[in-house]
Amino acid sequence: MQDTTWTEIAPGVWRTVVGAPDDFTPLSLLDVQPCREAMAQLPAQDFPLQPSWVTGEVAGGRTVVCLPLEADEHIFGFGLQFLKLNHRGRTRYLRVNSDPVQDTGETHAPVPFYVSSRGYGVLVNTARIVTAYCGSCGRKDSRIPPTIQDRNTDPDWAATPPSDTVELVAHTTGLEILVFAGPTVLDAVRRYNLFCGGGALPPRWGLGFWHRVPTTFNSDEVAAEAREFRQRDFPCDVIGLEPGWHSASYPTSYEWSPERFPKPAEFVQAMADEGFRINLWENPYVSPISRIHAALEPLSGSHTVWGGLAPDYSLPEAQAILARQHTEDHLSIGVSGYKLDECDGSELTACSWMFPAHAQFPSGHDGEQLRQVYGLLLQQITAYAAMRQGRRTYGLVRASTAGASSLPYVLYSDLYDHRQFVRALCNSGFSGLLWTPEIRSAASAEDWVRRMQVVCLSPLAMLNAWFDGTKPWSFLEVEPIIRKYLKLRMQLMPYLYSAFARYHFEGTPPFRAMALEPGVPDSKLDIDDQYIIGDSLLVAPLFAGEASREVFLPEGAWYDFETGERHEGGQAITVTPGLETLPMFVREGAIIPMMPPLPHAPSAGEAVPLTIRHYGPAPGAFRLYDDDGESLAYQSGEYHWRTLEVTLVGDGTRAGAISPAPEGWLSSYGEVTWEFVG
Amino acid sequence: MQDTTWTEIAPGVWRTVVGAPDDFTPLSLLDVQPCREAMAQLPAQDFPLQPSWVTGEVAGGRTVVCLPLEADEHIFGFGLQFLKLNHRGRTRYLRVNSDPVQDTGETHAPVPFYVSSRGYGVLVNTARIVTAYCGSCGRKDSRIPPTIQDRNTDPDWAATPPSDTVELVAHTTGLEILVFAGPTVLDAVRRYNLFCGGGALPPRWGLGFWHRVPTTFNSDEVAAEAREFRQRDFPCDVIGLEPGWHSASYPTSYEWSPERFPKPAEFVQAMADEGFRINLWENPYVSPISRIHAALEPLSGSHTVWGGLAPDYSLPEAQAILARQHTEDHLSIGVSGYKLDECDGSELTACSWMFPAHAQFPSGHDGEQLRQVYGLLLQQITAYAAMRQGRRTYGLVRASTAGASSLPYVLYSDLYDHRQFVRALCNSGFSGLLWTPEIRSAASAEDWVRRMQVVCLSPLAMLNAWFDGTKPWSFLEVEPIIRKYLKLRMQLMPYLYSAFARYHFEGTPPFRAMALEPGVPDSKLDIDDQYIIGDSLLVAPLFAGEASREVFLPEGAWYDFETGERHEGGQAITVTPGLETLPMFVREGAIIPMMPPLPHAPSAGEAVPLTIRHYGPAPGAFRLYDDDGESLAYQSGEYHWRTLEVTLVGDGTRAGAISPAPEGWLSSYGEVTWEFVG
Repeated sequence: MQDTTWTEIAPGVWRTVVGAPDDFTPLSLLDVQPCREAMAQLPAQDFPLQPSWVTGEVAGGRTVVCLPLEADEHIFGFGLQFLKLNHRGRTRYLRVNSDPVQDTGETHAPVPFYVSSRGYGVLVNTARIVTAYCGSCGRKDSRIPPTIQDRNTDPDWAATPPSDTVELVAHTTGLEILVFAGPTVLDAVRRYNLFCGGGALPPRWGLGFWHRVPTTFNSDEVAAEAREFRQRDFPCDVIGLEPGWHSASYPTSYEWSPERFPKPAEFVQAMADEGFRINLWENPYVSPISRIHAALEPLSGSHTVWGGLAPDYSLPEAQAILARQHTEDHLSIGVSGYKLDECDGSELTACSWMFPAHAQFPSGHDGEQLRQVYGLLLQQITAYAAMRQGRRTYGLVRASTAGASSLPYVLYSDLYDHRQFVRALCNSGFSGLLWTPEIRSAASAEDWVRRMQVVCLSPLAMLNAWFDGTKPWSFLEVEPIIRKYLKLRMQLMPYLYSAFARYHFEGTPPFRAMALEPGVPDSKLDIDDQYIIGDSLLVAPLFAGEASREVFLPEGAWYDFETGERHEGGQAITVTPGLETLPMFVREGAIIPMMPPLPHAPSAGEAVPLTIRHYGPAPGAFRLYDDDGESLAYQSGEYHWRTLEVTLVGDGTRAGAISPAPEGWLSSYGEVTWEFVG
Repeated sequence: MQDTTWTEIAPGVWRTVVGAPDDFTPLSLLDVQPCREAMAQLPAQDFPLQPSWVTGEVAGGRTVVCLPLEADEHIFGFGLQFLKLNHRGRTRYLRVNSDPVQDTGETHAPVPFYVSSRGYGVLVNTARIVTAYCGSCGRKDSRIPPTIQDRNTDPDWAATPPSDTVELVAHTTGLEILVFAGPTVLDAVRRYNLFCGGGALPPRWGLGFWHRVPTTFNSDEVAAEAREFRQRDFPCDVIGLEPGWHSASYPTSYEWSPERFPKPAEFVQAMADEGFRINLWENPYVSPISRIHAALEPLSGSHTVWGGLAPDYSLPEAQAILARQHTEDHLSIGVSGYKLDECDGSELTACSWMFPAHAQFPSGHDGEQLRQVYGLLLQQITAYAAMRQGRRTYGLVRASTAGASSLPYVLYSDLYDHRQFVRALCNSGFSGLLWTPEIRSAASAEDWVRRMQVVCLSPLAMLNAWFDGTKPWSFLEVEPIIRKYLKLRMQLMPYLYSAFARYHFEGTPPFRAMALEPGVPDSKLDIDDQYIIGDSLLVAPLFAGEASREVFLPEGAWYDFETGERHEGGQAITVTPGLETLPMFVREGAIIPMMPPLPHAPSAGEAVPLTIRHYGPAPGAFRLYDDDGESLAYQSGEYHWRTLEVTLVGDGTRAGAISPAPEGWLSSYGEVTWEFVG
């Protein structure tokens, strides 16, 4: 093994190269620049590891990089993991795969990036599959060899003894490694997101409620179902169409079904008139009946999927063909975005489909590389096509990898284990990913409520009724509870939108695990069933069958979001909420700006009243983000932050103040009401 | 892709090479020669595929070989598969791994060898991990492209459309491919086994009953437990010792525990005096306290397992060190053989341990190669050490791969799903493997009986009580049934021993799936819950919770083994046996030679009475194998076959005749009784 040498390439980010890496990497194919100014605002740091303990070599067709691990380190990240939060002691095989039912590391969106509880991050910038041995293998030359125990008599004997090394391995001629400094774990994540162009900023409507209709609905049926949301007083911003909107969908034509959607432009406009955006499902495999098939045929790989082409979307020509057709047929008539399905592939299970790793593509890349970045490429092609219309998009995708922070896409999955969905929400924030624990159906009204509560407090609040035809009011006995949470989603829009703005400008994940909270003790770092939204809102979901649960509250005082009841932090408390309540806690002194539960998100320039809640007898401040909510003008500086501030007045009461919007600014917020809780 | 050229290297076996393969292959490391004479007895055949449809290439660090598939082909084999019999439409990732809980192709003993229902076999002779796409990927240049179906409306839409190609892929610079002709599937399997040196011939005692004692038993406790078998009238030939017999076991010292086994030689001799052989558990990872540790240290890989060395057993020096110590400490005092545990490794699950694929070994081989053949190497080292004592051995192993046919080892697993265990029994016969569906514990007396019935009709009949401390009489209410099946095992020894002799000399697997039975219709080829022993005994297990089951009987008439009831074949029948009965059927005209249910196998030269059963009013013949049952003398021709023959006498009755043993031969069989059934 050879020593590595490191070059600081951005504030707190160092790079080394082992061997001769492929040029084709996730970061190379992204059209983003590191946010150097924002990175420079983070505390200055030295290289966080002992350089002589980081070694690498190329041998036998593989590149291996070894990094040190201390006995107390927890390892987080590796993308959208469903089965584990702390990967210490595990081997992670970071292949894109749609069926992560065993804890192998495979997932829709594996990211070869980890953060250590010691406050640094490590990225392998490669389109190859990385296997990460996170202290799961012992080396003969170990600095700290494990103690040998007698399995016959010692109950502490471990199948995987502790190891002092992370080994990162890929079948390739070389690897580029980036190290991100902290000092905190959250700072390392921030640097990663900022290095990847900053987090995605969705349009305001993206943070409303989404509903996907049954797959074979026609335009009249879609319109009728949408109208019912308004009639029944359930907010809804986006209607998603599923495979039946296409003239062919497995593989896909990308063209409207003339039977089901005879007048697409009129349909999209009519829906817009009632405040609904249209999102279109698709998969990447091109049907022979599509008009782009002939042009893509020579630009496609050696293998087909469902008889459709697998285009080589690493080629700009192929990208342009898809973007042009999507623009003509969808975006130019007002379609808001896409749901990019099945770009992950499924291998080695009963339901298998994908081009294989050895498939050959005209660019010279192989199936392994294309599969690892297919989701990333499709996000980029479709997002950029949408943005060329001058508007933001927000959509869904089933595969992603490193570098995706800035892409306005949210991951989803056919897996439907509620605990895993919450764990994925905790995990997503470590790796620049967004995730929706979408609701589809439920085993009971209780399950329906518990799932709906969580999805309404996630990056994308969606009912996906493509198969089941469920509606928010499907369980009549709990309809008021469901309405309450859809409305809460709308009420929290100012808070959520500001959290996303901080993701974009500062790299702070809007949804994140407890391990990213400063000051959480070692024993609580691995909590994977509660999470933080923004800076101050702690969410502790219940799962069907549970009447109560433990919630760990970090140091300080916390207030029940609804009742204002005060709890001392630095401990776990037991809560026994009714079905109508998802336990949510607000940090003492925190400010939660809210708006009325409108049927859909306000339009650009529409001013909504603001209710600003403040919790507990401590001063606090909040930075409220504002822009037009829809266009790309924020990218040229057309946004501003307003400061909300609560001070304690002499007699123990509180006073709130909001800084004014800039002169001439068409503010999104009108009348302000202050609520002091707790 | 380039065309391939084929050379016939043995009767009905052709070889081609794509690229520049590694020298280190399973077949290269085995010290066996093809049984050319026996292979020449099989029907002469032409190359069974269209050569121009077999292509290969080396690209991007991988070697790819494509072979044709016709629409009607079933694909069997790939080693000890638990989850599937017919692999058509699946991708098989043939890595040695102890946790095959998903249907990936990973297993304790993956073999890159498949047989087609069209009557040919294909072997990839490599120590690399092969991924086999068995018609699971579509190619743009497909001869027979799939029909595209509308998933929205067509219930026949398939996630994996049919494909006309098998693609075999490995990360390597080249592959050697061997094709084995039929004409039948069974002939292709026979050629494979004969090419690999012929099947294993166990000693007679290996076909008796085996019992493994709890892990921390000392020599007195072992002796007491063994004695109980004799007192309670349960046959037993082999007592297995588990990890506690060692002075250190995880990792392993290979030396006797001075506390538990202070006088090993006396202990082994005392057990032998009572008719018990001793089998010793071990794993491959060398404890620092072992006296061979220092010598093996420089001959070991870069990584440790449980803090123990992983020796490079591809080096003759390392092999010799292990063999010498085993001979001195175990074999020279009469130990009969080994149970080679944990040579498979476990990766990517909660309970992970193994050297990684990128580990480096002094021979220059890497961890991928060593792991794939570790079980094979350990079988060979230990079997040859035992044979150098002039005796046969029969043991257990948890990992194997291609070429293992001649090695006297039986696979086992910690997985404990009874249906999977029976499916593995069906699958083992396709790839030159033996498998025991060992019994450990049971959820109920019914489960206990159903498992015991199956294991008594398997290649190795064993109760493995290492953890549970169960005994054959643990479920008192069913003790008589259990005794019946242990005794049936002993009674069938002449039949079983002859079946194994045919495995050795003719390559015919003694236990095999229905797909290896000539004349089974296409629709019944994938049956994975009944199997054939020898030529004539069909076994159809029931599983706990079942009162009845369907049994498919091939063409011809079949007789219930116990009652003699006649059933017309060429159909499925429903049977409703009581708990006391495992449904077994005998082909019309078949002969089943049996002996009395002795407490243990007869010694060399000990003549036992023979009861020869014949079923149904049709003439029949059987070749009864005989040798001393223990030594290697059969390898120099000291064996013979006797012909048992039943003819129909004029009045409808039957007459049996047995050919005499050669002059001066110390026959294993004495008095003969004929039983005519049905």
